Amino acid sequence: MATAALSPATVVCLRLKPLSSTVRFLSLYRHHQPKPTKVKYQISIAPLHHPPQPRVHFNYLNNSTTNHRCFSTVVSATVSPGEVSEKSNTESIGERVGEFRKRLTIVDIKGGESEGVDRLGQTLTVKGWVRTVRIQSSVTFIEVNDGSCVSNMQCVIGPDAKGYDQVESGSITTGASVCVQGVVVPSQGKKQKIELKIDKLVLVGKSPSSFPIQKKKVTREFLRGEAHLRVRTNTFGAVSRVRSALYQATHKFFQENGFVWVASPIITASDCEGAGEQFCVTTLIPGSKEPIKSPVSDIPKTENGLIDWSQDFFGKPAFLTVSGQLNAETYATALCDVYTFGPTFRAENSNTSRHLAEFWMLEPELAFADLNDDMACATAYLQYVVKYVLENCKEDMDFFNNWIEKGIIDRLTDVVEKKFLRLTYTEAVELLLKSKKKFEFPVKWGSDLQSEHERYITEVAFNGCPVIITDYPKDIKAFYMRQNDDGKTVAAMDLLVPRVGELIGGSQREERIDYLENRMDELNLNKESFWWYLDLRRYGTVPHAGFGLGFERLVQFATGMDNIRDTIPFPRAPGSAEF
Amino acid sequence: MATAALSPATVVCLRLKPLSSTVRFLSLYRHHQPKPTKVKYQISIAPLHHPPQPRVHFNYLNNSTTNHRCFSTVVSATVSPGEVSEKSNTESIGERVGEFRKRLTIVDIKGGESEGVDRLGQTLTVKGWVRTVRIQSSVTFIEVNDGSCVSNMQCVIGPDAKGYDQVESGSITTGASVCVQGVVVPSQGKKQKIELKIDKLVLVGKSPSSFPIQKKKVTREFLRGEAHLRVRTNTFGAVSRVRSALYQATHKFFQENGFVWVASPIITASDCEGAGEQFCVTTLIPGSKEPIKSPVSDIPKTENGLIDWSQDFFGKPAFLTVSGQLNAETYATALCDVYTFGPTFRAENSNTSRHLAEFWMLEPELAFADLNDDMACATAYLQYVVKYVLENCKEDMDFFNNWIEKGIIDRLTDVVEKKFLRLTYTEAVELLLKSKKKFEFPVKWGSDLQSEHERYITEVAFNGCPVIITDYPKDIKAFYMRQNDDGKTVAAMDLLVPRVGELIGGSQREERIDYLENRMDELNLNKESFWWYLDLRRYGTVPHAGFGLGFERLVQFATGMDNIRDTIPFPRAPGSAEF
Repeated sequence: MATAALSPATVVCLRLKPLSSTVRFLSLYRHHQPKPTKVKYQISIAPLHHPPQPRVHFNYLNNSTTNHRCFSTVVSATVSPGEVSEKSNTESIGERVGEFRKRLTIVDIKGGESEGVDRLGQTLTVKGWVRTVRIQSSVTFIEVNDGSCVSNMQCVIGPDAKGYDQVESGSITTGASVCVQGVVVPSQGKKQKIELKIDKLVLVGKSPSSFPIQKKKVTREFLRGEAHLRVRTNTFGAVSRVRSALYQATHKFFQENGFVWVASPIITASDCEGAGEQFCVTTLIPGSKEPIKSPVSDIPKTENGLIDWSQDFFGKPAFLTVSGQLNAETYATALCDVYTFGPTFRAENSNTSRHLAEFWMLEPELAFADLNDDMACATAYLQYVVKYVLENCKEDMDFFNNWIEKGIIDRLTDVVEKKFLRLTYTEAVELLLKSKKKFEFPVKWGSDLQSEHERYITEVAFNGCPVIITDYPKDIKAFYMRQNDDGKTVAAMDLLVPRVGELIGGSQREERIDYLENRMDELNLNKESFWWYLDLRRYGTVPHAGFGLGFERLVQFATGMDNIRDTIPFPRAPGSAEF
Repeated sequence: MATAALSPATVVCLRLKPLSSTVRFLSLYRHHQPKPTKVKYQISIAPLHHPPQPRVHFNYLNNSTTNHRCFSTVVSATVSPGEVSEKSNTESIGERVGEFRKRLTIVDIKGGESEGVDRLGQTLTVKGWVRTVRIQSSVTFIEVNDGSCVSNMQCVIGPDAKGYDQVESGSITTGASVCVQGVVVPSQGKKQKIELKIDKLVLVGKSPSSFPIQKKKVTREFLRGEAHLRVRTNTFGAVSRVRSALYQATHKFFQENGFVWVASPIITASDCEGAGEQFCVTTLIPGSKEPIKSPVSDIPKTENGLIDWSQDFFGKPAFLTVSGQLNAETYATALCDVYTFGPTFRAENSNTSRHLAEFWMLEPELAFADLNDDMACATAYLQYVVKYVLENCKEDMDFFNNWIEKGIIDRLTDVVEKKFLRLTYTEAVELLLKSKKKFEFPVKWGSDLQSEHERYITEVAFNGCPVIITDYPKDIKAFYMRQNDDGKTVAAMDLLVPRVGELIGGSQREERIDYLENRMDELNLNKESFWWYLDLRRYGTVPHAGFGLGFERLVQFATGMDNIRDTIPFPRAPGSAEF
């Protein structure tokens, strides 16, 4: 057939020799195997009926630079190109993609109960970055870290190992990347049970002495200017892992409880909340090409000299979102239980250790739910994620306990185990007034509680127990909160924890359109621009409630880090948007 | 003691009668229990040794409007306020927060293997929105949906049920929210095995006839203008659930494989990629308060009439990110395997069904990895998440198969089961040239592959099998991709799937600083502004690779939705940033 002659199978095959599949997991010898050091690179993860796989992933140890990619065997007849499926013996140009395997990491080796003792005698390969090098008379110790845990792999190298010349020439320095292969042996040191006796050392990437993160103690302030490298320190490695664990536990909690994740928009032309200062998003100012030199006169204007928004990308002013809540409500009033979790923004000129211009916010929203359900959900969520990191990030938490905040594990364990308490705002004010403690900000019914008040309540009055304050005066809370029958307070709640103060703020939403519209009128809000939000009350309104949690506050709470800028990889603050 | 006299315990207790805890999960009778309809509201989820809980969540059915919140019993001595812990018999103002329970949903009732038959005879409460009302001579059928699945709960109500007057008065309309209580009985209809015989019907929120989403077929175009309500349709409900499942499966995959999630910044003053048009983020233009009336003359300018960026929030021009990759690389070269997953932005004036100005992007980055690892990871990821939705969103996928794209389940099953194939760009060009098919865009080595080419390869030449094309000409790919030994191509890969074309694009990154700097010089990129990115090659550089996946493309792929604006709750496009 003419078409068959033109089919892919007739294309010259450019790679005649099928190579084995790539695997990312080096095989391990059982430690009772004799002479484990003699045979290297053998792969044994595949079941026995698979043929041996002679080639390992990223093969530094053969000093091969051109062999980085190992292709799988040519495709078999069953997956040959459609047009020529009858020609089963023809070699095809399509080759199978290899299998993905989890790489062997230091936490895999040392993270188990035996701390690696079960691997004594195994020949392993470790890839990572040199933390320290200690040269002694007969041997040299190289501490290698791969970011999988706080612990380094202590590697010992003597003059007879391959690659020892790199040690002698001084190329193995702090910050250098290496690939080491050796046998797991008992460690003489007290800090670890095992170490790696190096057979072969390969320098992957050198690190000149200008590397900013040397062994000497560097300040966190300094490290903020090196945000691209600071994660190579113990502290920021641990913060990153715990942050990720909190994030993944968050999704796990809501998934297990049947919540649907909803992406609330980042850019919005809806000036709904009017809350705080917003960033403007525009294409009226020329884009990335030399914006430094933008003449103001290039900005399109109307006859009256006003900015001509009709020429902007969205045809009107658009802003970065300050909250996804109102959008989440639209989905909650159809899917019942939803959550948004994404970046939110404040253009407030607050250069403090508690504020970020860009931060991640979790906002669950529950339909057919009241403030009590909201509090119960917030409590269950917080206990779940804190328990998760205590159980899954033990080494990191020990690190924080030892080096960042003594007692943090006890503090977090309290949160998991203690019953959260609740009291009303009115009760809280009475409590504060009767405390006779001198506060910087006066306590008065109708004023918002300050951080010092909140911390007094949770830390002193209730002895470290998390506390939820409810039923705040309506005048200090947002327009959408549900009015209580007293006409003065709203069904709001703030969850306070020791050390941080307010961690979560939530409310039951006003589902009664007449109450909502009255409140908007009182506050001079433009009801037209809220047409879609009011629609949720016009059509099948239901009681619903939700809360917001600033994710970086949670990371602070769970790690003990003082400055919120150290809880997010690349913090944004006034004058600071590097990287 | 004086302090004890002032302690919280002495505050008047405002709620003297302890109430039972709130539970969100109505208890179910086992269906062999005699006379199940007589006792209503009894809660039996607690183990037997717990006392019965007489109060249910959000108690419409008692016609109670003030009883929405049920407080738990007052706190016991063990958790009394710290200052008065010795006064164990004093009533405290702190009350325990109730327990959070998953609400009983329609998918809980009907989603099991028996489709609800195991619940025959049980008295249940269902809360949701009315989809349709069919009045027959003796009974009325009300279809109620709560967003937990496509299926409605069919409810049957006769004149003797409480609340039947609401049916008679015509208040029970499409879009209204209701709370119904009744007994599960076998259904006479063919569409479902069970239905609910209503004892009591409560209208929660009415829905006037102006409700835009009536039974009559509405277009997707129309629904885009009703983005706050469209999720109340079958189609958008299903898309939302599948989107959420893909999202949660994504985190599950990377969590199981030891990846750390990294938040890449949204606002960046780093004009790194120079790729595509970027949105400017600024506070020079007044914020949310009446920006419509901003005079251009209010924008701060220098003596030369240029925009005075020093007065902007970040002290220099800042933009919305187009990719988190470069930031992810900083973390990968410390933690090894990381991923970012967040919103990204393009200010391109493309008003098509394939483009969004704001979309979510997944970007994993693997250290000590080459292009082969990258392809293996992309393949494993895609197969994992597609398998996840096929297994966990069966009803939604059946819905898409029946109503959106016939055969989608087979198409997705192919992706899970077929081996992905790979060929080089050069091979792909030869294949296309030899196909003799007339393409709109000419095929020529050195030109980028167009969607028509990509779809021909995956749909025709390889019969629906996903294909990865590698080793593209360097001139059509980004500067950071690793140069191959031929000097002409780079270690890039694009993953193509039937119907969508390119779903994933990735590459091995250039880890050799000399190659990278040369390439940047060739492209006239400003190396100074990339100082931190080049640092990753200066200090302990390692081979690394990663890919990007446009999440809305994946949702399109998995749901069969034609227009990408129907895959994200609130799409942003030129002229469109409502809600």
